[in-house]
Amino acid sequence: MHRQETIKNLENISSPNDLKNLTIKELQAYCGEIRDEIIDVVSEKGGHFASNLGAIELTAAIHYVFNSPDDKLIFDVGHQTYAHKIITGRRKEFKNLRTNEGVSGMPNHLESEHDIFTLGHSSSALSLSLGLSRARDLKKETHHVVSIVGDGALTGGISYEALCDIGANKERVIIILNDNEMSISKNVGALSKHLARLRLSRKYNAFKNGLTTFFSYIPLLGRAAIFCATKIKNGIRTLFQRQQMFEILGLKYIGPFNGHNLKMLIPTLERAKKSKRPVLIHVLTKKGKGHVEAEKNPREFHAVPPKNKENTKESVGSFSKICGETLTCLASKNKDIVAITAAMSDGVGLEEFAKQYPKRFFDVAIAEQHAALLAAGLSKGEMKPYFCVYSSFLQRSYDQLIHEISINSLPVTLLIDRAGTQGEDGITHQGLYDLSYLNHVENIAVCSPKDGKELEMMLEFSQNYSAPLAIRYPRNFKINYETHQKIEIGKWEIIREDEKSNVYVLAVGNRMLDIANEINSANIINARFVKPLDEEFLKQINKTENTIITMEDNIKAGGFGESVLSFLNDVGLMAKVEIKSFKNALIDNRDSMQSLIENGF
Amino acid sequence: MHRQETIKNLENISSPNDLKNLTIKELQAYCGEIRDEIIDVVSEKGGHFASNLGAIELTAAIHYVFNSPDDKLIFDVGHQTYAHKIITGRRKEFKNLRTNEGVSGMPNHLESEHDIFTLGHSSSALSLSLGLSRARDLKKETHHVVSIVGDGALTGGISYEALCDIGANKERVIIILNDNEMSISKNVGALSKHLARLRLSRKYNAFKNGLTTFFSYIPLLGRAAIFCATKIKNGIRTLFQRQQMFEILGLKYIGPFNGHNLKMLIPTLERAKKSKRPVLIHVLTKKGKGHVEAEKNPREFHAVPPKNKENTKESVGSFSKICGETLTCLASKNKDIVAITAAMSDGVGLEEFAKQYPKRFFDVAIAEQHAALLAAGLSKGEMKPYFCVYSSFLQRSYDQLIHEISINSLPVTLLIDRAGTQGEDGITHQGLYDLSYLNHVENIAVCSPKDGKELEMMLEFSQNYSAPLAIRYPRNFKINYETHQKIEIGKWEIIREDEKSNVYVLAVGNRMLDIANEINSANIINARFVKPLDEEFLKQINKTENTIITMEDNIKAGGFGESVLSFLNDVGLMAKVEIKSFKNALIDNRDSMQSLIENGF
Repeated sequence: MHRQETIKNLENISSPNDLKNLTIKELQAYCGEIRDEIIDVVSEKGGHFASNLGAIELTAAIHYVFNSPDDKLIFDVGHQTYAHKIITGRRKEFKNLRTNEGVSGMPNHLESEHDIFTLGHSSSALSLSLGLSRARDLKKETHHVVSIVGDGALTGGISYEALCDIGANKERVIIILNDNEMSISKNVGALSKHLARLRLSRKYNAFKNGLTTFFSYIPLLGRAAIFCATKIKNGIRTLFQRQQMFEILGLKYIGPFNGHNLKMLIPTLERAKKSKRPVLIHVLTKKGKGHVEAEKNPREFHAVPPKNKENTKESVGSFSKICGETLTCLASKNKDIVAITAAMSDGVGLEEFAKQYPKRFFDVAIAEQHAALLAAGLSKGEMKPYFCVYSSFLQRSYDQLIHEISINSLPVTLLIDRAGTQGEDGITHQGLYDLSYLNHVENIAVCSPKDGKELEMMLEFSQNYSAPLAIRYPRNFKINYETHQKIEIGKWEIIREDEKSNVYVLAVGNRMLDIANEINSANIINARFVKPLDEEFLKQINKTENTIITMEDNIKAGGFGESVLSFLNDVGLMAKVEIKSFKNALIDNRDSMQSLIENGF
Repeated sequence: MHRQETIKNLENISSPNDLKNLTIKELQAYCGEIRDEIIDVVSEKGGHFASNLGAIELTAAIHYVFNSPDDKLIFDVGHQTYAHKIITGRRKEFKNLRTNEGVSGMPNHLESEHDIFTLGHSSSALSLSLGLSRARDLKKETHHVVSIVGDGALTGGISYEALCDIGANKERVIIILNDNEMSISKNVGALSKHLARLRLSRKYNAFKNGLTTFFSYIPLLGRAAIFCATKIKNGIRTLFQRQQMFEILGLKYIGPFNGHNLKMLIPTLERAKKSKRPVLIHVLTKKGKGHVEAEKNPREFHAVPPKNKENTKESVGSFSKICGETLTCLASKNKDIVAITAAMSDGVGLEEFAKQYPKRFFDVAIAEQHAALLAAGLSKGEMKPYFCVYSSFLQRSYDQLIHEISINSLPVTLLIDRAGTQGEDGITHQGLYDLSYLNHVENIAVCSPKDGKELEMMLEFSQNYSAPLAIRYPRNFKINYETHQKIEIGKWEIIREDEKSNVYVLAVGNRMLDIANEINSANIINARFVKPLDEEFLKQINKTENTIITMEDNIKAGGFGESVLSFLNDVGLMAKVEIKSFKNALIDNRDSMQSLIENGF
């Protein structure tokens, strides 16, 4: 970490316009200041770390050359927009990053006119920017549309759908490929290999141009060396420098360039501005740039937690960790178990599984649709697949859940992490829809554990379950319950009986059960199967004098509570039903989950 | 049409094994018999026509070389499997194609062990076959996995996600690219252009090899000529023959070959069988092959209707047609209107719009995710986008509806055709989920018209509606209602008042309203807004003596009825509520929609 003490641009720059008066040297110094600021704030507040440090010079160069918000900048995923937020007048709010008082961790259109869209899912920027470009052309406007996409984002099928459309129709779109060879986990797939080849081609040029220093960092050479072997084997592919995928798809390709070198970036972006057809600028950046440890280990420094978690009781365990450990343990006995993830192997707890069973572990990159289908295929081939995925990202597999998995009733198990509210991550990462979109898909059973032990039991149960099954849970749990009843399909568990009370609280998952448990004089039920419902039990308690309260950290529409109400209505509703759930899924409250749940209902 | 009178293989072949004893000449004759059979049956029963005629020789060659069901054959989409069904012992049932007595129009795993999956959505075969291949390798089995994909399927992002995975990991998968230059509508996008170049490269070879006749058909030359112009412009791309996309992605590429020439196909497939790494065989076929009119106009002959529609009252109009006409008309006054479709322009009624406003019409190929995002981008750029799509296919845009359209509350209008049951198309094409998956997505209003005039009015209404709006309807309607009340958001229309009756029937869409209208002594309400509900009206009729019957051609879970029940429960349920809807979405009944609705509830 080098503190830039000479110029204090950070104080003086409050909009991209202020930037334009700086010399390149001053801009460079400013980038240093931004870097220090990001390191300070993220260390304190938590957030995406390595990717933001890698994108500072690139972001500064973009704002130097283009005129936001007249020119439209779309950052794909948006987890690398911290420099963008600081440059566009949000330095003060940035100090309270990812809290209700400060800026969100992702682009947010309600926060600034420089954030065109609120978003947080990968691979959508190219399509969105094509839409903006077409609108511009139809309205005979002249501004630029620039999308900044990571190499990880290109592994998602939507990016390809968009590239095909852009390339074929030649609208004026500027794409900046911010290539740091990573998505959340290490990039995988044929495209990464292709990018490695492009990097290599640049390597040859680099020798000529005296830019060798940049290319001397180890991972790049590692990749290049691997490629060399492949290249020799394949023999004929000697002309890859000219013939490559982006050009085949109809884009003008420029690069690759050092993404930390402003002197190189600025004229390149100026050149791109003049292009009349779609252009892709391939920029190489270093994740974690300027932070020694993050540079060495960008995967570990992808995101860091806040220094002091306030307002939250300490969690006793991580569902992600238990999921990974249990699956690894089960896999040692059951040779049919395979695990699939879509660029989230660390987040869902699969590191150890991947190490122990590399041949039975498939990280398909940011490709949730393919992941679900791969699971379907493996299942048809008599393997036992587990697709580990965040609740919010599984939305991308919705059609495959219906069409291939449900219609064919394949015993795929979905392990849905980050269900419910997600605190600091805000509106774009909430897992508040999953119960609703799984509830109505035929053949899929849905359950949610009360603690780590119950997750283990559900995983054991899943091994012999012969139809699709979804197990959904948040990242952590706070209470280890003492007793655990055997898991049976559609059977709930009575946690506390109170013969004097006419109130029955049906709570889904650990968070709800923890809250329910604090209610005095009520019957507390662990409604661990959201689908199928425990119909026998519901019939028993369906009496005029009873009140049934359902609790779920999901939206109301189509969720657990409505499902209970609908069943009781079918059999003749006698009890009073109260549904406790989120009234609205668009929650941008970044407070601790506990307070959110307590107030959000 | 040439009747093959010499050999009657059709009678004698009841499994792929019987095929293996034929000589190539006999196999060719057999293909002729299959062709005649398909022409006869489809002319009578309706179904996919041109694509099936194009795939006969290819299918025969595949069954000649591979051993189904030991070797696994996955036909992408599955609308080209008629020859496969005849060859695999279903000739008798084929005569009742797309009826409950006969075979389904798509692969169906309950129908035959030769149909590995039940499916009907495009672009999933590559992922599924990779799953099967990995399962095979893990189980140390040796069979082949062959996926047969159309060029249209490759425009879908999932195909790309799968190709990246296949290419990078080198599992032994055999991909046969059945390239007929069409999906439902004409193929679009950069990939088609790339395929055209590959075709061209073959054209040069063809001259050498004396195969010129095959390449003389007009569309191919048309494409080639266009490409020549591009090629000259681009100058440097002279080496496209060797360097192309599939090889960049890591696949071994063989082709292109004439897909109607058994003498060529069989040895090529034999060669592919021996490959130890993933191989893609590029086969050129002619849609409608052997049927003069279908060859000339494959788009019109993509699918043909049954000769005699039984059990259905004649429809008075097509919602698809009215949608297209109204949109075209509105577009003449409102320059901001743009229309988007995903390879369904004819099906959703947009031919005329496309002709009149080519610059405001975007067919993105089979890429529903991109289509939804393109709409989001256009909307942000102040255009007024309409995304016209089938109910079942919109499932693929589910995450984009939530993440980009709903979170950003963009005034995108979804025109959802083929909602509700789809009769002959069977289980894979039902539109029975849309009300459920739209109901819980924030910010999206959902309505359904009672007749053509009301669809017009809803489209007019949509012009000034400033948030996301979905209008869903089946293909046709049967009654023109006499009166039409002005459309207001969340306001229902009383169709018939009966002061003596305590029954209130809330019917969604034309099909339900038509049925409701036949009920005597009841209050009949056109519940044209499924979301928001007409809360005022519901409160008024929420009385102990009243019975509220909801009707929707959607599944029960998360649908309209449960939404009504949940609202009434919130305000204090007094009335009796009965929900009429489909109990299960997995309906493979291919009877007329009328009888399905009457019996399926």
